[in-house]
Amino acid sequence: MHRYFHEQLDVLEQMLLAMGWLVQEQITAVMRALQQGDDVLARQVIDGDRQVNTYDVDIDGMCIKLIALHQPAGADLRFITTAMKIVTDLERIGDQAVNIAQRVLELNRELQLTPSIDLSRMAECAQRMVQRSLGAFVARDAALARQVCGEDAEVDALKEQVFRGMLAFIMEQPRATPRAVRLILISRFLERVADHATNIAEMVVYMVQGKIVRHTLA
Amino acid sequence: MHRYFHEQLDVLEQMLLAMGWLVQEQITAVMRALQQGDDVLARQVIDGDRQVNTYDVDIDGMCIKLIALHQPAGADLRFITTAMKIVTDLERIGDQAVNIAQRVLELNRELQLTPSIDLSRMAECAQRMVQRSLGAFVARDAALARQVCGEDAEVDALKEQVFRGMLAFIMEQPRATPRAVRLILISRFLERVADHATNIAEMVVYMVQGKIVRHTLA
Repeated sequence: MHRYFHEQLDVLEQMLLAMGWLVQEQITAVMRALQQGDDVLARQVIDGDRQVNTYDVDIDGMCIKLIALHQPAGADLRFITTAMKIVTDLERIGDQAVNIAQRVLELNRELQLTPSIDLSRMAECAQRMVQRSLGAFVARDAALARQVCGEDAEVDALKEQVFRGMLAFIMEQPRATPRAVRLILISRFLERVADHATNIAEMVVYMVQGKIVRHTLA
Repeated sequence: MHRYFHEQLDVLEQMLLAMGWLVQEQITAVMRALQQGDDVLARQVIDGDRQVNTYDVDIDGMCIKLIALHQPAGADLRFITTAMKIVTDLERIGDQAVNIAQRVLELNRELQLTPSIDLSRMAECAQRMVQRSLGAFVARDAALARQVCGEDAEVDALKEQVFRGMLAFIMEQPRATPRAVRLILISRFLERVADHATNIAEMVVYMVQGKIVRHTLA
C-alpha cells in the first residue's frame, strides 16, 4: 500500500510536468503566431486550451483521491496540496496563451504598422521561470525556487521597457495606437505567466521549508 | 472530536469571509483613491496588503492541519481543498488592489488631463461577484455560483467599452496617452478581480456537484 502510494506520487509528478510542458508549448506557439501573423496557429492555440483544462481536472481529481485513500500527513500531504495549487497556476498560464492568441487575431485584422518591438526575450524569460519552478517542485529544491522568484525582476524590467517604448511610439504615430496598446497587453499577459511561475516557486519554498516566505521575498 | 471538527470548519468559513470582506474593502478604498487622486489612501491600500497575506498563510495552515488531524473524506475534504484554492484567489484579488494603487500613484504624478471615464460600475460589478462567489461557497449553493459565472460577461463588456473609449481618446489627444493607457490597465486589473471571482464560483460548482463545469461554462 505504502509503495503504491509513492508510485502514485510519481505519476502525479509526471502529469504535472507533462501539463507544464504543454503550457510552455502553448506559449511558444502563440509567440510564433504573433511573429508570423499566423491566424491558423493562433486558433490552434485557442483550441489547445481544452487539453490544458483536461489536465487540470484530472490532476485535481487524482490529488483528492490520493488524500482520501491514503490519508497522508506531513511532507506528503503538503506535496499533494501544493500540487493542487500549482495545477491552478498552470491552467491560468494556459489562459494567458489564449489571451495572447486572441490579441494576435485582432492584430492581424488591423493596419500593419509595425512598431519595432521584440517580445520574444520576455516570453523566453517567463517560460524559463515556469520550467524552473516546476523543476524546483519535483526536486523539492527551495534554493532553486528562490532563484526563480528573483528572476521576476527581469521580466518586470522588460515589461516596463515595452511600456515606455510603446507610449513613445503612440505619441509619434497616433494611428498605430490600437496596435501598440495590444502589444502592451501582450506584454502584460507574459508578465502574468512570470507571476504564475513566481507563485509556484513561492509555494515550493513554503512546501520545502515550511516557512512563510510567500509574502516576504522582494 | 467530530463536533470539534465541524466547529473548526465553521471557523474556517468565518476566516474566509473575513478575508473576502478585507479584499473588497481594499478594492473600495483604491477606487476612492483613484477618483479623488488621493496618494495617502493609495499607500494605505499598498500597506493593507500585508493583512491580506497574513490571512492567506493562516487559512492555508489551518486547512493543512484540519486534513492532517481529522483525515476528512468526501464532501468535507473537497470543502477544505476548495477553501485552500479560494484563499489563493482572494490573495490575488488583494494583489490587484495593490496594482491599481500603484497606477493611482503614477497617475497623480502626471498631467491632469481627464479622459471622461467611470470605472466605478466595473469595480462594483467585480466586487459583487466576489461577494456572491463566497456566499455560494459557504452556502454550498451551486445555482448561485453558476449565476456568478454568468456575470463575468458584463464586466468583460464594460472592459471593452473602456478600451474602445480610451483608444478614441488617445487618437484625439495623443498627449493624454500615458494617462489613458494607465486607465486601460486599471480596467484590466478590475477584470482580473472578476476572473478570480469566476474561478471561485467555478470551483464551488465543482465542489457541490462533483461535476467538471469548470471549463464548460461559457
